[in-house]
Amino acid sequence: MNEHALFHRPESEYAYAISQNEVTLRLRLDRGDAIDAVYVVYGGKYEFYGKQSRQAMELRFVDRLFAYYETTLRLKDVRLTYVFEIVEHGKAWTFSEDGLGESYDYHLNFYNCFQFPYINESSIISKVSYLQNSVFYEVFVDRFARGDYQKDDSYINMKWGGKPTPKSFAGGDLEGIISKIPYLRKLGVNGIYLTPIFSSVSNHKYDISDYYQIDRQFGTEETLHRLVETAHQAGMKVLLDAVFNHVSENHPFFQDVKKNGERSPYFHYFKRRNGAFECFSVCKYMPKWDTDNHAVQDYLIGIGKHYIQEFDIDGWRLDVSDEVSHPFWKRFRRETKALGKDIALIGENWHNAHPALEGDEFDSIMNYAFTKALLDFLAFDTLDEKGLSERLNGLLARNAEPINQMMLNLLDSHDTNRFYSEIRKDMDRYLVALAILFFYEGVPCLYYGDEALMEGGYDPDSRRGFRPDTKNEAFSLIRFLSRMRKRGDFASARFLMSSSDGLLLLERRGTKADYVLAVHKGPGEVAYEAKEVLWSAHYRENRLGSFGFVVDRRRK
Amino acid sequence: MNEHALFHRPESEYAYAISQNEVTLRLRLDRGDAIDAVYVVYGGKYEFYGKQSRQAMELRFVDRLFAYYETTLRLKDVRLTYVFEIVEHGKAWTFSEDGLGESYDYHLNFYNCFQFPYINESSIISKVSYLQNSVFYEVFVDRFARGDYQKDDSYINMKWGGKPTPKSFAGGDLEGIISKIPYLRKLGVNGIYLTPIFSSVSNHKYDISDYYQIDRQFGTEETLHRLVETAHQAGMKVLLDAVFNHVSENHPFFQDVKKNGERSPYFHYFKRRNGAFECFSVCKYMPKWDTDNHAVQDYLIGIGKHYIQEFDIDGWRLDVSDEVSHPFWKRFRRETKALGKDIALIGENWHNAHPALEGDEFDSIMNYAFTKALLDFLAFDTLDEKGLSERLNGLLARNAEPINQMMLNLLDSHDTNRFYSEIRKDMDRYLVALAILFFYEGVPCLYYGDEALMEGGYDPDSRRGFRPDTKNEAFSLIRFLSRMRKRGDFASARFLMSSSDGLLLLERRGTKADYVLAVHKGPGEVAYEAKEVLWSAHYRENRLGSFGFVVDRRRK
Repeated sequence: MNEHALFHRPESEYAYAISQNEVTLRLRLDRGDAIDAVYVVYGGKYEFYGKQSRQAMELRFVDRLFAYYETTLRLKDVRLTYVFEIVEHGKAWTFSEDGLGESYDYHLNFYNCFQFPYINESSIISKVSYLQNSVFYEVFVDRFARGDYQKDDSYINMKWGGKPTPKSFAGGDLEGIISKIPYLRKLGVNGIYLTPIFSSVSNHKYDISDYYQIDRQFGTEETLHRLVETAHQAGMKVLLDAVFNHVSENHPFFQDVKKNGERSPYFHYFKRRNGAFECFSVCKYMPKWDTDNHAVQDYLIGIGKHYIQEFDIDGWRLDVSDEVSHPFWKRFRRETKALGKDIALIGENWHNAHPALEGDEFDSIMNYAFTKALLDFLAFDTLDEKGLSERLNGLLARNAEPINQMMLNLLDSHDTNRFYSEIRKDMDRYLVALAILFFYEGVPCLYYGDEALMEGGYDPDSRRGFRPDTKNEAFSLIRFLSRMRKRGDFASARFLMSSSDGLLLLERRGTKADYVLAVHKGPGEVAYEAKEVLWSAHYRENRLGSFGFVVDRRRK
Repeated sequence: MNEHALFHRPESEYAYAISQNEVTLRLRLDRGDAIDAVYVVYGGKYEFYGKQSRQAMELRFVDRLFAYYETTLRLKDVRLTYVFEIVEHGKAWTFSEDGLGESYDYHLNFYNCFQFPYINESSIISKVSYLQNSVFYEVFVDRFARGDYQKDDSYINMKWGGKPTPKSFAGGDLEGIISKIPYLRKLGVNGIYLTPIFSSVSNHKYDISDYYQIDRQFGTEETLHRLVETAHQAGMKVLLDAVFNHVSENHPFFQDVKKNGERSPYFHYFKRRNGAFECFSVCKYMPKWDTDNHAVQDYLIGIGKHYIQEFDIDGWRLDVSDEVSHPFWKRFRRETKALGKDIALIGENWHNAHPALEGDEFDSIMNYAFTKALLDFLAFDTLDEKGLSERLNGLLARNAEPINQMMLNLLDSHDTNRFYSEIRKDMDRYLVALAILFFYEGVPCLYYGDEALMEGGYDPDSRRGFRPDTKNEAFSLIRFLSRMRKRGDFASARFLMSSSDGLLLLERRGTKADYVLAVHKGPGEVAYEAKEVLWSAHYRENRLGSFGFVVDRRRK
């Protein structure tokens, strides 16, 4: 056994409660080890020395280096004490806090067992009920659709279809989104997330000057009410963008500070370092809130609650959430979730976000690591089928299962190049990407126009005016996959991912049927025997050609 | 390079802020790797693609399997982005979130670099200023000393010096502790922690019926005032025991629940599961608080603040802290530390306590893993010098450096057998244990009578009446080591631990001198050349015999 590969961490993604009496445990081993079986040996804290139960763990993920075993224990005594037993070549080893040993003295377990000390209510990782069945759609509001032709449109300086600059205004608005709800519904979308809609001088509106006013370019409070109502009637959730890391210098609090300096009651609302105000990135016009300041927390959390209470929105996407303080988010979660357990909180963290994904801050994050994996597979060609399976399994190992099921997976966003451009408009590759996006564990999130083969490089080019195209194959595939996802048996099915000989397999193991996405990137052909072909590309006579894939239902 | 051994975890003990612009980074490798050098390549988040700095990392710990490299970065831009560069056999590898690679594309770093997103005030692991220079002493109040001979002592049912039972009362009290302060000062102690002193029917008083009253067996509010004042005058800190996991069934809140059931306003103050009230261990007479309940938090945190504000105590030892909810402790810390940054909070967690030791809950814990290591070395003989060095280095790798410096290291407590009994009263072994206790990183904490060679098995036997003995070698050694520790240059010196050929070396590298504790367990002899012998045992002509050790000062 490769002892260096062995890993377990109590109270983390390796040990977490999913209910008042259930704990999921994960153990990492070298994938190359010749393991016969892995068990968790467990008991109640005060009787473990004399009374142990055993439960087998099953292989859950394999990444490039490691194999991850998992099991969920159903407990009577929720003061869980445990060690692992690993059987290799018929010989059992015990893995405890003191490491791997040929034997284990249960009479001294209180010194070196692993433990999940107690399942408090706050220990449980809870799920937003609808996320797992959702298909999300990100709308960059100024560029998606214009619906209001009565408004003062003198600010519009870009022709729809033109090439955007950082200073372009195209005229998209909330009324436009309302008008597109039937379209989105047809596509299969049942959740939309809007970039910021509050008063701001910019087209992106990430520099907010008044959180309590809908920007008049986009509509009014009445329009937002109607948008949420119309969306809800169509079975669609609405998330707004919470920009709580920074603000516009035009915000009255910062204006007051500029005028009155240290005498301003808001002086300590803004983060300073070495005497100067901190800002977002290098943008001096976006001063940074001090989110450790309790008065700032009161103010911003008040905004978070306001739109939930007054406008019935379903949650928030959290801008630059990684630079905001953890105590802020813990309090934000506590106070917004008190308004409804199903309020969704999705962070913008581009990296391993474990401190925010342990059940007491965000539900999930925008999964840019997924984006990168698909770019490596389909745009940069640095991963083959095996490499992608290992990478994506590795990402699942970063977080607890309930978190993975809520991850907002995306191919692109307003902050990246368009995926379709990254793959040089290769439709074969694009369809493979979409199929994986919809099959992978988590919530697919399209960026407006993904379904219409919109192109674009980095900001501002990825923010062009929406141009519909419902006749292309991607649109059809998305419609099909969205409908499939919404079936309870697909969404709740157990996800597994593996590869073998040029074949990438994403499986959803349900009670009534297993759904399998089999992908071959190529070159060459590979055999795959589908049972019931629901969709396919480059698949003939049980063989997948380059960029071939098949959506296969295997009824039980 | 053994890729399976490579480990780094952002925002954890592997990456933490120690000031507004300093971040310490740790990287784990296989100790067997032939490493030429390890660097961190870092920069500001928004310019890292084009501008990278490099800083060498130094080898900090070596345990049985791994080598841990560390460095502290001083930053201008505190949105830290980084990868590691590992040079092996002259070839450089890059380690990022995507794993180890022969090259790294800095233009795509935003997808897969490591990051410490931003140093907020709340990100910083702060230290209690005095802990590092302290020597603590745990007092089991009923058994340490009686000072009040006026009190109603009809409850006393055990002769001082007799064998305690679970129901024994020996008569120790706060007045007795006051009378012992000159003694403790002579021993070198400058911090005491008392087992619970609030109203309770038991001798240990872990089942509290009134947190706001000093148990009359122990004294009055006036006695506590005088105890704290006398201790402070003697330069001694006072910690009390916070029993917030559970309470006595005699507490009026629980009595009300027993009487009125669900109609009681306190019904939800107590944790239930499957219809029954939860309790501490199997003790039905100690019902468990629901520490996620906000009203319970208000009540218990109010107690925590009361004794700080009204009695000027210096902090709390937190009983069964691992079973209390994390949100409770985060709030407890916030509200008690607001009364004074130097309030000390020390948890009773017997295991890896990382979720509570990340700067926002406890300062440190009672280090029972240290206890176990010393038992393995000196009582069970399952570790040799090398094994102990590796084990204790492994424990340092569990937590951030500032936490390690505050750890309450102990040989025994009211919850273990007496260490002196565990080693079968072998004075040679005992002196070695004490020397290591005082040299190891953290705060030594004696259990009353450790200095007097008190014996005892498990509870209640480890709670005998204190019997002084100031003439033994252990007492002298403790006096000497306590005085040495209090020197600023010793306490603030950099700690390093290693072993070679039967020699265990604990080093404190200071600015004016290095202090070295060299230990040989034996059998046989081993060479060690001391520069200035401050204390020694079984050391002659530059050779250490079995259980020999030398405290060596190496002036610069």
